[in-house]
Amino acid sequence: MRLRHKPWAKEKLMNHPEFVVLDPENYKGKWHELFGNDNPIHIEIGSGKGRFINEMAKAHPDVNYIGIEAYTSVIVSALEYALEAEPTNLRLLNVNAQKLLDYFAEGEVDRIYLNFSDPWPKNRHEKRRLTYKSYLEMYEKVLVKGGELHFKTDNQGLFEYSLISFSHYGLKLNYVSLDLHNSDFEGNIMTEYEEKFSQKGHRIYRCEVQFS
Amino acid sequence: MRLRHKPWAKEKLMNHPEFVVLDPENYKGKWHELFGNDNPIHIEIGSGKGRFINEMAKAHPDVNYIGIEAYTSVIVSALEYALEAEPTNLRLLNVNAQKLLDYFAEGEVDRIYLNFSDPWPKNRHEKRRLTYKSYLEMYEKVLVKGGELHFKTDNQGLFEYSLISFSHYGLKLNYVSLDLHNSDFEGNIMTEYEEKFSQKGHRIYRCEVQFS
Repeated sequence: MRLRHKPWAKEKLMNHPEFVVLDPENYKGKWHELFGNDNPIHIEIGSGKGRFINEMAKAHPDVNYIGIEAYTSVIVSALEYALEAEPTNLRLLNVNAQKLLDYFAEGEVDRIYLNFSDPWPKNRHEKRRLTYKSYLEMYEKVLVKGGELHFKTDNQGLFEYSLISFSHYGLKLNYVSLDLHNSDFEGNIMTEYEEKFSQKGHRIYRCEVQFS
Repeated sequence: MRLRHKPWAKEKLMNHPEFVVLDPENYKGKWHELFGNDNPIHIEIGSGKGRFINEMAKAHPDVNYIGIEAYTSVIVSALEYALEAEPTNLRLLNVNAQKLLDYFAEGEVDRIYLNFSDPWPKNRHEKRRLTYKSYLEMYEKVLVKGGELHFKTDNQGLFEYSLISFSHYGLKLNYVSLDLHNSDFEGNIMTEYEEKFSQKGHRIYRCEVQFS
């Protein structure tokens, strides 16, 4: 997405600790304490402007959601969304997913969402794709046994790559749609990007894989 | 495909034992002897009118091909193709794939091709799909260790189903294209059906999976 520099964004995040956790490494292994319940924890890596994670939090009050987004000027939109809706089951982290293991303890997360992740189409950038095996290793560590990764994208090449990466890692494919918006899948919550590009005629690909 | 009754087909097959093996159960474990070499054996299940298997035989003279097709009035077209080209590395079997284990010994086959198999879209017909687990069990038995299944179809539902079935069986996905005709895959040989339906704008899906 196009990044607009927002010099005021950082300060806005810091002014809302009720949604933005500024010191996530201090909550490693303590997220259930923070939420004050034992509900499952679902995280989205690359939350962008945050429509998905906010709408999920609204639709599923019995799940705790954590949205992770590295770009300050983007995640501030997710915060603005939350300031409107005031969910109690949502937190936002303005951090890089590469350090996931600094923020979550083993088995602390029940599900991971990846939505329209950067495809990094060049072969030499393979390791940056969020479905590359080194990321899968991190996901496996923070997920509960049998935890799931739910992934959607309109990028055909990234989806093909990811199906192969998942298979080689030994993940079990439990669901796949090669045209989500013309499928019978219910409860889909669109991201901003998804709405825009599906309207342009892009197919949306979606799958669910499970760690053993 | 539309089946036209051809009362003369059966006799024509019987008149050409150089291509049509009428007693395949007698060659179980002896296919290399029949071909007179140790080249790998690739079989296609559901050869239809036989363009694919004939063109593969022509393109790869160092591979032995066996085309299997249950419909007499269809496989006769594959025979006519062979009578023109006179390949020495091709045989045709007018039998049902359900009895695969009667015709091939364990580890006798190096690769299996499934092209545009009947999708059997109704749930109650799942067991008839050629990528259902009971078929995968048969394929695993006749294939060499590490043998591959190469599958293409224009049927989105069958492809989605098959990706899940392969994953649950523990097969390794080594290749996948969600739009074969717009990919950089080289050496694709089109079936009659593939040519017709890709011209109508259908996407062709293709994958390669490997048994361990």
